[in-house]
Amino acid sequence: MSDAVSNEAALPAWLREETAQQRACLSEAERMRYVIDLARRNVLEGTGGPFGAAVFECDSGRLVAVGVNRVEALQLSCAHAEVLALSLAQQRLGSYDLGASDMTGHALVTSAQPCLMCTGAVLWSGVTELTYAATKKDVERLLGFDEGFLPPGWQRRLRRRGVTVRGALLRDEARSVLRLYGERGGTIYNPRSGAPRQR
Amino acid sequence: MSDAVSNEAALPAWLREETAQQRACLSEAERMRYVIDLARRNVLEGTGGPFGAAVFECDSGRLVAVGVNRVEALQLSCAHAEVLALSLAQQRLGSYDLGASDMTGHALVTSAQPCLMCTGAVLWSGVTELTYAATKKDVERLLGFDEGFLPPGWQRRLRRRGVTVRGALLRDEARSVLRLYGERGGTIYNPRSGAPRQR
Repeated sequence: MSDAVSNEAALPAWLREETAQQRACLSEAERMRYVIDLARRNVLEGTGGPFGAAVFECDSGRLVAVGVNRVEALQLSCAHAEVLALSLAQQRLGSYDLGASDMTGHALVTSAQPCLMCTGAVLWSGVTELTYAATKKDVERLLGFDEGFLPPGWQRRLRRRGVTVRGALLRDEARSVLRLYGERGGTIYNPRSGAPRQR
Repeated sequence: MSDAVSNEAALPAWLREETAQQRACLSEAERMRYVIDLARRNVLEGTGGPFGAAVFECDSGRLVAVGVNRVEALQLSCAHAEVLALSLAQQRLGSYDLGASDMTGHALVTSAQPCLMCTGAVLWSGVTELTYAATKKDVERLLGFDEGFLPPGWQRRLRRRGVTVRGALLRDEARSVLRLYGERGGTIYNPRSGAPRQR
């Protein structure tokens, strides 16, 4: 069904065949350029928000799964690029733990720093590496998206649980995609940060 | 497909027809008793972790959607009870914002305090009320589940964004379900909190 977050059909049509290409990105910069391209394409095609993510095998660089923001398209607030990429990777590998001991390590590469929800999703996914480009402040200041609250030291806290964090790699390239989304009048959906419902 | 988080098929068979019953729970205690029963049934049926959640209309108490923990069953680390209930509600109502201005307000009731990921999911879902039973410490101490890190004042921070938070309602009843899961040898899956992968 098209509304699944763990189903290829959750992806826009232009992206569905991507992981069938047996792509590998060896360097971290190459991986990041790839996910920023996904984000840009998502904006240009009008298929979602300016965010892209992908899961790679840490050592081989093999692409395992991709995701882009699909909140509006699927009418699902959890359909962030990171959640889609992680869920599709888990479905493909048949495991809720991408860091299982009988498995090669996996990395999540994302065009923007994960929000509150996605930081939790990263932790539970079992990936051992997280790399992001644009920062929380970039997303908030350039577009006005609410990213939620994370405690000071969230990177250290992830590291303590075995997840290496790196940012902000190729930040300027990711920021240009955020700006592009704004210029094209993309929707900023912040369910509860506008005027709160009065009861 | 059975792996969707926004599809009735994500629920165990015993739960799939539940919201067709046109149930309404007027009081908060009644709503909580209902979701604790879902959690208990999930343990007894062996269909997932000891967690249940549901979305209700705030004023009428009408049941909109249900969820239970399905991480192992779906092999999806994001398949927490809260994510399922929120996603199913959004799918049913055709909106990623359960607090949209043309809609009656919605409440998420959950048998345990939302983890890091689910706290973010609550924020983005548009619900205006969150009520939980067992606390983070209960889940961590009684079972050893990792719940992630939340900043001090997370309840205040949610309230500031228009989400009223109440807990720990019927905590003892929820704790008894956590204990039941432990007694029955339920899996404690903490992808990265054991021995971190050495690279």
